[in-house]
Amino acid sequence: MHTVFYVSDGTAITAEVFGHAVLSQFPLPFEQFTIPFLEDEDKALAVKAKINNSYHQSGKQPLVFHTIVDNTLRNIITSSDAMCYDFLNTFVAPIEQQLGVKAEPRTHRTHGMDNKQHYDSRIDAVNYALDNDDGVTTKEYDEADIILVGVSRCGKTPTSLYLALQFGIRVANYPFIDQDMSRLNLPPALKSNRHKLFGLTIDAGRLQEIRQRRRADSLYSDPEQCRYELEQVNRLFRMEAIPFIDTTYHSVEEISVKILERTGIRRRIY
Amino acid sequence: MHTVFYVSDGTAITAEVFGHAVLSQFPLPFEQFTIPFLEDEDKALAVKAKINNSYHQSGKQPLVFHTIVDNTLRNIITSSDAMCYDFLNTFVAPIEQQLGVKAEPRTHRTHGMDNKQHYDSRIDAVNYALDNDDGVTTKEYDEADIILVGVSRCGKTPTSLYLALQFGIRVANYPFIDQDMSRLNLPPALKSNRHKLFGLTIDAGRLQEIRQRRRADSLYSDPEQCRYELEQVNRLFRMEAIPFIDTTYHSVEEISVKILERTGIRRRIY
Repeated sequence: MHTVFYVSDGTAITAEVFGHAVLSQFPLPFEQFTIPFLEDEDKALAVKAKINNSYHQSGKQPLVFHTIVDNTLRNIITSSDAMCYDFLNTFVAPIEQQLGVKAEPRTHRTHGMDNKQHYDSRIDAVNYALDNDDGVTTKEYDEADIILVGVSRCGKTPTSLYLALQFGIRVANYPFIDQDMSRLNLPPALKSNRHKLFGLTIDAGRLQEIRQRRRADSLYSDPEQCRYELEQVNRLFRMEAIPFIDTTYHSVEEISVKILERTGIRRRIY
Repeated sequence: MHTVFYVSDGTAITAEVFGHAVLSQFPLPFEQFTIPFLEDEDKALAVKAKINNSYHQSGKQPLVFHTIVDNTLRNIITSSDAMCYDFLNTFVAPIEQQLGVKAEPRTHRTHGMDNKQHYDSRIDAVNYALDNDDGVTTKEYDEADIILVGVSRCGKTPTSLYLALQFGIRVANYPFIDQDMSRLNLPPALKSNRHKLFGLTIDAGRLQEIRQRRRADSLYSDPEQCRYELEQVNRLFRMEAIPFIDTTYHSVEEISVKILERTGIRRRIY
């Protein structure tokens, strides 16, 4: 098995995203190591030794995906016996030429805390998502960017948190539960903010599986109950013309991006 | 101002990370548009028209960062008048050569839902973080990977959620509040899991600012109270030899990655 190293003088999150995206196109397993905060020569030399050692032990040349701003540290890593892939520097030169501006590399820029306003937006959005999770209160819905609605465990909470953390968007979520089911009406707090409503739905079998992990062998996780709730709620979405998407085969990232695309809501963090 | 387009047949998250990382090295503002789920020729042609239109209006050649697997759709975008940067295909050929394996491009791989086990780990971790947020219960600490401790509003909750969503790690968090302050002892629930404890601290001025936004002009946001709590807790960290980091100048990403690095905890999602 090939070994992959993600090496950076920052968090290495960019190096990981870059490496994952490229390697996902290859039908092979990889052993992966992430080395963040490469900040001095001693650490760089130790990492180089680890990379070379992995080569000697496995007999396969390791892959290194790196985003290292400091030249000395980068040269230590690229002098290892691995194949090193450097996407930052590959693209900096042509972009310098296009823009007619020299790059000014500095560390910790991508996932650092350069922008305090972004930081506050993000923390405020996380607080908002938690304060308005699971319908605990409906008093702050006027401040929501989006209100996610759907049955319990269809993906509302992880989506709310992802939208808050990644994009600084204020997302409330409201579960339709027992008393809402039979009358099939929007509660007043939702009616007055109906332009913010976005529905999530899910396959009944998958819902049953998720609820079973949460509360085994209960009415809550009964297949018939799951089907009933979904039918009622899907009917409500259609009656009330609430846009909705099916979360069954989508990751939290995909659901979040689809919601942004459908609603046209602008993120507060780019 | 130059306009930047992030275009993908998936979420475009990879294209954004790629573009942000490269552009963060340039001291210029950019107007940014993200176009995810480029799935048919009509949409591709509309996006091409939008790109060309932006060129005509601004007089500046747009930048396009794209990750598009389908050749036909990619060719439509790259036939626009923008400068197009394609990091996937730039690196696929050399990696094919190194590995001796042909790439098998397919869409939706990077931020899709290929791996149901990863997906369940992630959702379980998010549920765990919420169930064990803010010390609401200490009964599930045996199942924690990490227990974050510190004063109220030092960054525990966003860090817990980020570690859960991105890495599938189970993080509980426990705030030291009034009754813990004066006796400076670890509560029994923490003592029995002390190897899992990780402390967060923060600058007193920054804490006061954050608390002021949360509950203005209260004892909670009083500068003297903030200083007192931090002093007591920092002393506890030292007395009990609890590893800790200062969150003041770090993003949630940096804090999370530093915790992984210091504790050596392996992520469940790569």
